[in-house]
Amino acid sequence: MTDGQPRTREQRRADALAKLSAPAADVWVATAGADAGGHASSYLVPLSLAWLGERVVLATEANSVTARNIISARRARLGLGPTRDVVMIDADLEQVYSLDEVPADLAQGYARQADWDPRESDGQMRFLVLRPQRIQAWREADELPGRTLMRDGEWIT
Amino acid sequence: MTDGQPRTREQRRADALAKLSAPAADVWVATAGADAGGHASSYLVPLSLAWLGERVVLATEANSVTARNIISARRARLGLGPTRDVVMIDADLEQVYSLDEVPADLAQGYARQADWDPRESDGQMRFLVLRPQRIQAWREADELPGRTLMRDGEWIT
Repeated sequence: MTDGQPRTREQRRADALAKLSAPAADVWVATAGADAGGHASSYLVPLSLAWLGERVVLATEANSVTARNIISARRARLGLGPTRDVVMIDADLEQVYSLDEVPADLAQGYARQADWDPRESDGQMRFLVLRPQRIQAWREADELPGRTLMRDGEWIT
Repeated sequence: MTDGQPRTREQRRADALAKLSAPAADVWVATAGADAGGHASSYLVPLSLAWLGERVVLATEANSVTARNIISARRARLGLGPTRDVVMIDADLEQVYSLDEVPADLAQGYARQADWDPRESDGQMRFLVLRPQRIQAWREADELPGRTLMRDGEWIT
């Protein structure tokens, strides 16, 4: 599946930003919590995202496993696919907003990129604003070297 | 993206099995562990899989975060995509094999379906045999009802 050379860091960053900014982009959201017995338990679900001001914005129901885990652990690991052209993001929770609290431009930005508007939802929704700390991008094994594009919240140049 | 009616359970099961059996199929593997501070931490990575005897078989390096988390927590949550045609699997760890221990038919079955053979790897590889406990499949919101195809390790009929 490789077509020649591994991409440069600049190309990977441009490709990653294109994926994050794409209309109706979805992301795999992996979170961790504790089960009833207190053991670490992983959760995974695909969600629509928006990429606003270098933040990943998700919207989901307040009582969902994903929302509860992110609010508790203050972080998540995100994967954009397909599986052989991935962008992996480790992100920290920066803000949580209810529908009453969400800034209008953030909600509008989310609705514009995602293909739905959480403000029209019946449920108790939360907007989760996640700040990337590490971003990696690779296609195949030949792209594992040089896969880290952002470290400690800063793009590597 | 919906094209008419939600799929029947039978159709979803057939589609899920086709995804699991596809040559060079990849799966998103979400695992949980504890970070240096003892806090729950999620990990996520795409891996090749094989579907052998109603088990998901993964192969990865013994010292990878995924292998360590699965061996410690004895479970994982798996997602096959794309994000709008997903199969979600909660699975328990049934067996771990090193290259010295792995049954030949399992290693051959893995190599046949995946597009690589862990036995040719330099690293300390582990085969992880995961037994699905719950399998769910949906495309869009209209398929959320009826998404559970397997519960407590048994296909729902």
